[in-house]
Amino acid sequence: MLNIVKVGGNVIDDEAQLAQLLKDFSAIRGFKILVHGGGKLATKLCDALHIPTQMVEGRRVTDAETLKVTSMVYAGWISKSIVAKLHALGCQSIGLSGADGNAIPAVRRSPTPIDYGFVGDVSLVQINTRFIQTLMEQGLTPVFSAITHDTHGTLLNSNADSVASSLAIAMSDLMPTRLVFCFEKNGVLRDPGNDATAIPEITRELYEEYKAEGIISGGMIPKVDSAFKAIAHGVKEVIIKHAKALNAGGGTTIR
Amino acid sequence: MLNIVKVGGNVIDDEAQLAQLLKDFSAIRGFKILVHGGGKLATKLCDALHIPTQMVEGRRVTDAETLKVTSMVYAGWISKSIVAKLHALGCQSIGLSGADGNAIPAVRRSPTPIDYGFVGDVSLVQINTRFIQTLMEQGLTPVFSAITHDTHGTLLNSNADSVASSLAIAMSDLMPTRLVFCFEKNGVLRDPGNDATAIPEITRELYEEYKAEGIISGGMIPKVDSAFKAIAHGVKEVIIKHAKALNAGGGTTIR
Repeated sequence: MLNIVKVGGNVIDDEAQLAQLLKDFSAIRGFKILVHGGGKLATKLCDALHIPTQMVEGRRVTDAETLKVTSMVYAGWISKSIVAKLHALGCQSIGLSGADGNAIPAVRRSPTPIDYGFVGDVSLVQINTRFIQTLMEQGLTPVFSAITHDTHGTLLNSNADSVASSLAIAMSDLMPTRLVFCFEKNGVLRDPGNDATAIPEITRELYEEYKAEGIISGGMIPKVDSAFKAIAHGVKEVIIKHAKALNAGGGTTIR
Repeated sequence: MLNIVKVGGNVIDDEAQLAQLLKDFSAIRGFKILVHGGGKLATKLCDALHIPTQMVEGRRVTDAETLKVTSMVYAGWISKSIVAKLHALGCQSIGLSGADGNAIPAVRRSPTPIDYGFVGDVSLVQINTRFIQTLMEQGLTPVFSAITHDTHGTLLNSNADSVASSLAIAMSDLMPTRLVFCFEKNGVLRDPGNDATAIPEITRELYEEYKAEGIISGGMIPKVDSAFKAIAHGVKEVIIKHAKALNAGGGTTIR
């Protein structure tokens, strides 16, 4: 079973929590891939460099300067720091953007009706699964940032959740794959304020019920939607859980 | 013949010159590796972030914040931009730091008598040549920044010329290797002010003569010294030449 673990920005920002997560991750046997988000460093850096934040309909626009910053932070410092730490834990790893080995090509999002700038949506069918498999067969663990490219010379900023689920779907063609989203909550919660209320398992039927009742709402909906999409495309299971409990059971399983 | 091309910071900083260099580089047949320097972006970023420059005996100290900036700039933006551009030129490439795949382990320089901070000297015998060869056999061209690691979890800043010559020496165990230093002059010049005076070939005997006569002096001495070291350790030839003339002959050959 290939384990693809997505770790969110809140964990990246917390040195102790990241260290624990990397320790747990390195203990996973067999093939594994880490996909990391960005955390607050890119925003801090944009602020320090006086790069104005442009928001359109609540979403940040990636202009040329912002692309430079996100490429530096995600594919540079965060990627290479994680790789160095994993090596120290005995996990032979390699930090990759989607441009490296043409691993994850993307398509720049259409500038109409809204131009989000250098933002790319992953080209699922073009993921270079053979390259990723060959690295793993050499004993290397890929560590992916969500920086991709358009194959015509331009880097693009992609969504890390989408990179993780696209990778999981694509790799499912080659081997059974589990996708784990690690974040700062115990799973999909019945009561968002109570971390003891994680729903152990969500089926498609239950999901429709929970949405209708308002139990699952807001920002959790795209996450669960993408989990069901992954399942529908061959991923064995998707688990949404706390980063502190990577190897400890619990969380919400979507099958 | 494996061609290892080192491209200096002045070329990285000049968009048109870099584009031409990458076009020429992608036209080289057979196995090839690009090693890139940093250019001025890291210094600009340190200035913008008010990270003070500490110099000891004329050399910059890499403190924790400077390491973060150099990792971001060299292993992030510059590395991934070059990779994206090479893919657009049909050259399947992969951007690597020395931490990735444990390709280039380094040893942190002793803090006595002078503490240069997070600066690492490449561990020549530990270079993961098998990993690099396997990537090339898969049709991938490695693109190396001079960010390395100590294998205990810490990234280090290394000298890009040293990374290139260490790689050339290590790879010579596996295949005949040529090392090309591309920079902003036509080679080792008889008259530093006259670009038409490149010395076509330097033997060990001629080198001693030129040094005694003061024809080769200053910053050129460490470059030529490292070229002779590479030759002494099995590299077939070392060429020092202008970045504009990568595939056009000329320059200074050291055998």
